[in-house]
Amino acid sequence: MSVELRKRIFAELDAQELIDPHTHINALNPASETLADILGYHYYTELAHSAGMPKSQVEEPGISPKVKVQRLIENLGSIDNTIQYSWFVEIVQRLLDIDVEYVDSSNWESIYSAAETKMASADWEQEVLAKSNLKAVFLTNDFDDPLEGFDTSVYIPCLRTDDLVFHLSKPEVRQRLANATGIEASGAATLREAIGKLFAHFTSKNAKACAISLPPHFSPAPCSDAAADAAFAKVVSGEANGVDAKLLSYFVFWTLAESCVEYKLPFDLMIGVNRGVYADGVFQGQDLYDSRVSLIQYREFFNAFPQVVFPISVLASVTNQELASYAWIFPNVVTNGHWWYSNTPTFIEHDTSARMEAVPKTKQIGYYSDMYKLEFALPKFAMFKRILAKVLAERYVIDRSWSEQRAIDFGKQILRGNVDRIFFE
Amino acid sequence: MSVELRKRIFAELDAQELIDPHTHINALNPASETLADILGYHYYTELAHSAGMPKSQVEEPGISPKVKVQRLIENLGSIDNTIQYSWFVEIVQRLLDIDVEYVDSSNWESIYSAAETKMASADWEQEVLAKSNLKAVFLTNDFDDPLEGFDTSVYIPCLRTDDLVFHLSKPEVRQRLANATGIEASGAATLREAIGKLFAHFTSKNAKACAISLPPHFSPAPCSDAAADAAFAKVVSGEANGVDAKLLSYFVFWTLAESCVEYKLPFDLMIGVNRGVYADGVFQGQDLYDSRVSLIQYREFFNAFPQVVFPISVLASVTNQELASYAWIFPNVVTNGHWWYSNTPTFIEHDTSARMEAVPKTKQIGYYSDMYKLEFALPKFAMFKRILAKVLAERYVIDRSWSEQRAIDFGKQILRGNVDRIFFE
Amino acid sequence: MSVELRKRIFAELDAQELIDPHTHINALNPASETLADILGYHYYTELAHSAGMPKSQVEEPGISPKVKVQRLIENLGSIDNTIQYSWFVEIVQRLLDIDVEYVDSSNWESIYSAAETKMASADWEQEVLAKSNLKAVFLTNDFDDPLEGFDTSVYIPCLRTDDLVFHLSKPEVRQRLANATGIEASGAATLREAIGKLFAHFTSKNAKACAISLPPHFSPAPCSDAAADAAFAKVVSGEANGVDAKLLSYFVFWTLAESCVEYKLPFDLMIGVNRGVYADGVFQGQDLYDSRVSLIQYREFFNAFPQVVFPISVLASVTNQELASYAWIFPNVVTNGHWWYSNTPTFIEHDTSARMEAVPKTKQIGYYSDMYKLEFALPKFAMFKRILAKVLAERYVIDRSWSEQRAIDFGKQILRGNVDRIFFE
Repeated sequence: MSVELRKRIFAELDAQELIDPHTHINALNPASETLADILGYHYYTELAHSAGMPKSQVEEPGISPKVKVQRLIENLGSIDNTIQYSWFVEIVQRLLDIDVEYVDSSNWESIYSAAETKMASADWEQEVLAKSNLKAVFLTNDFDDPLEGFDTSVYIPCLRTDDLVFHLSKPEVRQRLANATGIEASGAATLREAIGKLFAHFTSKNAKACAISLPPHFSPAPCSDAAADAAFAKVVSGEANGVDAKLLSYFVFWTLAESCVEYKLPFDLMIGVNRGVYADGVFQGQDLYDSRVSLIQYREFFNAFPQVVFPISVLASVTNQELASYAWIFPNVVTNGHWWYSNTPTFIEHDTSARMEAVPKTKQIGYYSDMYKLEFALPKFAMFKRILAKVLAERYVIDRSWSEQRAIDFGKQILRGNVDRIFFE
Repeated sequence: MSVELRKRIFAELDAQELIDPHTHINALNPASETLADILGYHYYTELAHSAGMPKSQVEEPGISPKVKVQRLIENLGSIDNTIQYSWFVEIVQRLLDIDVEYVDSSNWESIYSAAETKMASADWEQEVLAKSNLKAVFLTNDFDDPLEGFDTSVYIPCLRTDDLVFHLSKPEVRQRLANATGIEASGAATLREAIGKLFAHFTSKNAKACAISLPPHFSPAPCSDAAADAAFAKVVSGEANGVDAKLLSYFVFWTLAESCVEYKLPFDLMIGVNRGVYADGVFQGQDLYDSRVSLIQYREFFNAFPQVVFPISVLASVTNQELASYAWIFPNVVTNGHWWYSNTPTFIEHDTSARMEAVPKTKQIGYYSDMYKLEFALPKFAMFKRILAKVLAERYVIDRSWSEQRAIDFGKQILRGNVDRIFFE
Repeated sequence: MSVELRKRIFAELDAQELIDPHTHINALNPASETLADILGYHYYTELAHSAGMPKSQVEEPGISPKVKVQRLIENLGSIDNTIQYSWFVEIVQRLLDIDVEYVDSSNWESIYSAAETKMASADWEQEVLAKSNLKAVFLTNDFDDPLEGFDTSVYIPCLRTDDLVFHLSKPEVRQRLANATGIEASGAATLREAIGKLFAHFTSKNAKACAISLPPHFSPAPCSDAAADAAFAKVVSGEANGVDAKLLSYFVFWTLAESCVEYKLPFDLMIGVNRGVYADGVFQGQDLYDSRVSLIQYREFFNAFPQVVFPISVLASVTNQELASYAWIFPNVVTNGHWWYSNTPTFIEHDTSARMEAVPKTKQIGYYSDMYKLEFALPKFAMFKRILAKVLAERYVIDRSWSEQRAIDFGKQILRGNVDRIFFE
């Protein structure tokens, strides 16, 4: 009974048109051109490397897309158990319309060719959006992105602020800020002004969110203008120590939240990543984490900005209960998707189950794809929808005697309704 | 098969008369008078507030119970997914005998009236106890509670000690202690004497436990009388710093355990809460936690008091494995219920499953309601019994080929037998 | 459907011949002689003690095996819910061929006698190996073990190094090292030389792994020869402080990894145990943990030794996601079994599910028994295989539409194939 029930609920969820609230899509080149764009995704290169493929093979300069795909295919046998591999197969099956269970050395070449042909079609991007039931996707834009040359109602800008908070000590970042805003920041006041300019620019281009990823040790506090001035001066003169850098990062972080108040933007916090842990890893395959992080670190921050909505992602499943509890108590905290190392079925099932029964149903953003190429929305959302259907079937229709329709409505609100409510109202 | 099996096991568990080993019932006024007593529970006010209801609406002084209920009902749509909402509906269905799936603006007024009538009946309290299959409930009494005017065999006193351990620096707390004991505490010896008096009073009134809630950073150590004398003097003179306050809290905590030895009382430890994290939250809706806590902090304490039984609750599910492991090794550590932010089905299922298979079956107290009003025992215990039946069906009868009867007997021991064994033998 | 499917998959997994990659078997006396060897396992003595049996009863000097068994049996009623008790019953059922559901005061004596007879048989050891489908087991050998008198192709040596890393400050450990190697270590160079000798000896005796258990606070860093010389001198002269001891432990740990490079041995890291937490516990029933540990502590170490394979066990399930993530990213990190307090079904199911879908299938060592007596491999591996069959059935065949054969092949690789690949290739 449960399996049939899950299928019925899945079918209803699957019919729901989606807006993907967090991706890394390049709006000027959103879809793939060859399978190398698919298999070049760090999930494949890092897993193949982890399973034994030398980094030099993965990243050899100058190799053609086809050679890259051939090499990766030869190394995917060891990872064909992973959920990430299943995304690739589902892309082949449902976007390329090729009915295979594996892609391996026996069949990859014909699939490569078929993909090349399909992806060269003028309407491939539209076809992918249509098959994926995707109305729009959020981007992740550098603060100095001109945001031009694309339809911002489909590719919705999002101001990514890691560079501003954590890398202002780099002269090139300060230069980029000056170029983007026309303001030569020299302290608290000019920094605030420059950041305001960024928000004005982004919101004029239909930006719907500000976003940042944060390391586990980050524990923000307010920083006075005077302290920020002093810290900034030391950073510019190259005399900054760790405390100065920290103060400056606090100041910028706090200022971003102030701008979110002024410009009425939600501020996506993605909490928990340590960058560059595996120094010799492949591109984008070097980051890990320390799961000893707590939302108590944001206590003062959440209290200081009741007017800002914070959609929050946590990297480790062990932080999920805190996230659910903080979203249950703080009006301005919202649960947001299943990030990176927690974006696998066992953790998604546990984490979404815990949120669904304890957080107001209007404050749960079910899922985002985090994709770099459009083709991944379909299999990633499909994974989530299958899990959501399972949880709704088992924990609501069976365990709590809900009607199927009530369960489906709840699922749709998590999948889509709350994206509308939180980012567009 | 599994669903029918669960129902059969649930029916057997549901027939078991209960003693609720931890509540916040006011013995002089245990049951509700209107739905405002039900919906005034912080689970509803804080969730409604989290979903957008202004605190000023929730807590406007002078509003009538009926207006308060009306306002809350209008804000419960956003939380009708939560397990907490389901408790409310189950109260309406099973205690008020009204067959509805939702309570909303379309039907609340007639339900309010029906409730008012029922609750005004002279035997409402007895009816609730009977329908809930409740023989007795433990209270949470201030240390200076006279414990008079009620039947202590039904409303069983429990000495709550947070004020003594954490708030002795407040003159009013010291005054209350003096008033309650006739002893003007001036140092270690008099404090010990005063605490002894409290235990004598409480046990003379049928108290069956001492209890305290503890913040995550608390890491108790023994404190000499001389050190306690010095710390106490500074506290009284207003010159105490953080270290003095900490030493004094250690001294009192240790002294409480010594009294538990003398008076043969279990000492309930509820570990992990940070008070007042959301400063602008509604009443009782401000506390959260830092899940980075370990029972290793109690290592010396557990070793020092082998004669005291410590029923332990942890606030976060990530601490549950430690709790199960410490109860598996330490004879004096007992697992106790599913507290607050872990009192939702996903965490209960995971946590109780882990305990059931690794902790001696005599050392697991399955559940307490933590309720403020009698009406909540029924739906909260029902939730737990459904989960317990699910775990017994799936993990014992199916996975481990136990007979149904063996599974039921185990369930009843967790539900009730261990409460008798631990608090009454 | 799911239950039948699980049974079919289990049957296929159960037919797989095993190599047990981590045990504490004494190769000179691997099997039990009486039930006292079975019930003397710390899982029973510590649980019986936790449930109320005095340590003096458990460990009274001079009692006969039969009296010891009688006493323990009388105290097992309180733990017959535990998975550990089920191992004992499965041994009675499947190795002693006695069809009982419980062993208690009504039937223990005849079972004791039957066991004594069976175990006295000359081929009992072989019978246990055969019934358990065990081809070989890894040992845990002291560094000065002569490794003589047994078949090292069945009982495979493993160099256990806790004493070297953490107890070199004890004169008797340094003496044992001198005796074993003929080298009187006096600093970095001679320590390195002595350790090299141990590796040469062990690998000449077919050793296939180096292993160590590590406390949660251990956070290794490289240590120069000069610093190690200074620290060693202080340790020998008895003037060492905590920093010296730590530096020396880092030096030895790093040197062990260097030897693993040279001798091509995997280095099993078992992370998270605090020794002696319950000071008055029974033998081997005193250790617990602090779950606040992170693999980030090994960041520098993992980067420094890309040539060494690290099969890693973590003590707490809350660390399992980090383990899965680090194994997903670092080529030299491999997931290894379900250790001690995480070796119970609820945690195994959650932890193995999380690994299976995110770690390359070649990098997961499913299970080891950790046993002290041969009889435990059968019930412990059976427990794991049942859970593995459940996960394969529910999460692969049902949730992901895998064929049964594909699921079985994946399961066999985790159970056995990777042991061959990682330790024998």
